[in-house]
Amino acid sequence: MEFQRLTRMFASLERSVLRRILESAGNPPVRIAMAGGPEACSHSGELVAEIVISDWRTLAKLVLNPDINFGEAYADGRITISGDMVAFLEAIARSRAVRVGSGLYPWLAERWLNLTQVNSRRGSRHNIHHHYDISNEFYQLWLDPQLVYTCAYFPTRTSSLEDAQYAKLDHVCRKVRLQPGERVVEAGCGWGALALHMARQYGVKVKAFNISHEQIAYARWRAHHEGLENRVEFIEDDYRNIHGSFDVFVSVGMVEHVGRSNYRKLGKVIHRTIGDTGRGLLHFIGRNRPWPLSPWIRKHIFPGGYTPALREVMEMFEPWNFAVVDVENLRLHYARTLEHWLDRFENSADEVSRMFDAKFVRTWRLYLAGSVAAFRSGNMQLFQVVFAGSQCQSLPWTRAYLYQATREQDQQWTHATS
Amino acid sequence: MEFQRLTRMFASLERSVLRRILESAGNPPVRIAMAGGPEACSHSGELVAEIVISDWRTLAKLVLNPDINFGEAYADGRITISGDMVAFLEAIARSRAVRVGSGLYPWLAERWLNLTQVNSRRGSRHNIHHHYDISNEFYQLWLDPQLVYTCAYFPTRTSSLEDAQYAKLDHVCRKVRLQPGERVVEAGCGWGALALHMARQYGVKVKAFNISHEQIAYARWRAHHEGLENRVEFIEDDYRNIHGSFDVFVSVGMVEHVGRSNYRKLGKVIHRTIGDTGRGLLHFIGRNRPWPLSPWIRKHIFPGGYTPALREVMEMFEPWNFAVVDVENLRLHYARTLEHWLDRFENSADEVSRMFDAKFVRTWRLYLAGSVAAFRSGNMQLFQVVFAGSQCQSLPWTRAYLYQATREQDQQWTHATS
Repeated sequence: MEFQRLTRMFASLERSVLRRILESAGNPPVRIAMAGGPEACSHSGELVAEIVISDWRTLAKLVLNPDINFGEAYADGRITISGDMVAFLEAIARSRAVRVGSGLYPWLAERWLNLTQVNSRRGSRHNIHHHYDISNEFYQLWLDPQLVYTCAYFPTRTSSLEDAQYAKLDHVCRKVRLQPGERVVEAGCGWGALALHMARQYGVKVKAFNISHEQIAYARWRAHHEGLENRVEFIEDDYRNIHGSFDVFVSVGMVEHVGRSNYRKLGKVIHRTIGDTGRGLLHFIGRNRPWPLSPWIRKHIFPGGYTPALREVMEMFEPWNFAVVDVENLRLHYARTLEHWLDRFENSADEVSRMFDAKFVRTWRLYLAGSVAAFRSGNMQLFQVVFAGSQCQSLPWTRAYLYQATREQDQQWTHATS
Repeated sequence: MEFQRLTRMFASLERSVLRRILESAGNPPVRIAMAGGPEACSHSGELVAEIVISDWRTLAKLVLNPDINFGEAYADGRITISGDMVAFLEAIARSRAVRVGSGLYPWLAERWLNLTQVNSRRGSRHNIHHHYDISNEFYQLWLDPQLVYTCAYFPTRTSSLEDAQYAKLDHVCRKVRLQPGERVVEAGCGWGALALHMARQYGVKVKAFNISHEQIAYARWRAHHEGLENRVEFIEDDYRNIHGSFDVFVSVGMVEHVGRSNYRKLGKVIHRTIGDTGRGLLHFIGRNRPWPLSPWIRKHIFPGGYTPALREVMEMFEPWNFAVVDVENLRLHYARTLEHWLDRFENSADEVSRMFDAKFVRTWRLYLAGSVAAFRSGNMQLFQVVFAGSQCQSLPWTRAYLYQATREQDQQWTHATS
């Protein structure tokens, strides 16, 4: 009798905790339940997913530090999600109920990550290695054939991922108005697609830097394979070690790894390479206002990552009198890109599971689905910023030329995709 | 004998002061001389202008506080400039040698202007009255027929000013994607051209605010004349008093008058009018980094004026989670616009002189010529920033639509200019 009463009391407690969790997540349209036990459902409308928590320890951890523990419990299989995971995460993102770093445990976790993931030269190498050096074969399973691991540019909503990545590479090149023979430096070059595109389609000479050993090895192989070694040099080194004189500086998807405290340093590197007469483009994930990256993402996906507000990025430009020429926000294109990646990832889930394990698959599924949600909801932005030195003579009169396909470019397109 | 020696000593002193002045102005390619006395010429190449200083008092003042005293002496006729004034001012601007506010007198002048030109509701009315209420007939002499007193958008470098101002109004409307029936609020509407364009060409309802009595009176007359009173309401009031609910917020050329300390307030006004679902555009003169406006300009042309760096403008957006959608830098278009204005102004100089006096003509000539120089050299930028509320559903997929002229728009164009 006493035992039954205790059980009932415990169930009632669990139910009210579940309700509290839903509430603090902004009441997403889901059912949340303890495995074989009480459940809660704050939403009267149509439900998009069901969340099942395996045990009360997991529940307790979820209360203490949901930012990190939700993802970890899902990866471990202690939380299961059935239904539409993206819609569930999008509802949370849209409610903006989740506030990173409130409470003691989240605060401690935040400080711990700041302390252990410093973007020093050595720290950056470690952080980058964690994400990009896990296996080229893995990325080949779900990225486009060119292995472009940044936001694509979809000329239309129904463009294929391959076409959209090609269009993105070209959009970047046209924005900085590459001229044959110019010298370009790229900071953070991934598997080399942009550097090779610039050299092949625009006749420029490129030095491309990256501290991911695997990526650089692959990019060099590709340059050799395409016979572009004379025009593209892939260098395994830190952006802080970039020297030399260039006409154009480009960086696509590296600013997120630089860290808030190094923006002035990056600005200095840009200025010492292109001076007052050069121009450049930064492509990066940003925010509407300064905000730390999710601690779960920092712990398990992008150690040392930080996605800046535009205001913070100005620290790279202002000290050297760089002019901002053009800013484009492509967040809807990143949502679309990530939808493609998530689809392809799910289609290869069995293979990924064999390469790594089921926990890895769940971790990456949550990362990709959560990213779709973040860009759809506007929690994250994607900025392309074109800038120019104070004495730069190569300013476009209008942006109309970006949207006029020339016959030559159509031919290039045909050539490159045939 | 003694007297001659003294005269020689004095002349030698004047010469070295003249040299010093040239040096501190970044050695522009000019000859500078005392009237009938010694001269200096730091440049070995082709000279673009000759500056003559009438007396040693003017020379002394020029040394103490060149920022203000150069312009005042030119306006008074104590300094004359012959040759290419714009080229002379551009050379100074490009050398970036002039540093506002260094030295005791400039520092005092700066503080004095800050103190006396506060942009309170009352102060703003006073500041705006100083520039915009001097005479509609005066502005009609040298602006385009629609009286658009902000940077135009030249589809090609050879477009006429009239066409370029029409194209600018349309560029703004297309950037915010106006739909028939939507409600638009405009803060700082000048003589009403944009508000009327939006209502006439896009079928929206507009409330347009301005604290210039003369401009509002003219705009109301025009709305009546065009039969648009039912769709455009011109309100003589401060932006801080804007209330009501709107789909779109636009402001072209007002941010410069708002003052650095009121950006948060302006952001609050924007958020309370368009909420999280609306969108908007700000068009303003900006800088590569925070920098005070020339004290001469503040004293004689735009009291209370401040042209912000992009970073500073983010203060209007961040607290309300607005997303920056698009930033375009049109500084070359403002240089072109100002060239047109300066040309037209010179053609009407006699008439302006009769309306006011010769000092007024010189003051305004220096202001317009200096502005051409500032935008040509990149000392000043012109930003159009499109932004959207965090829940805004009206985001364009790409910007390509901005550059595709539709048949309807061509017809509208024909209609409006016929």
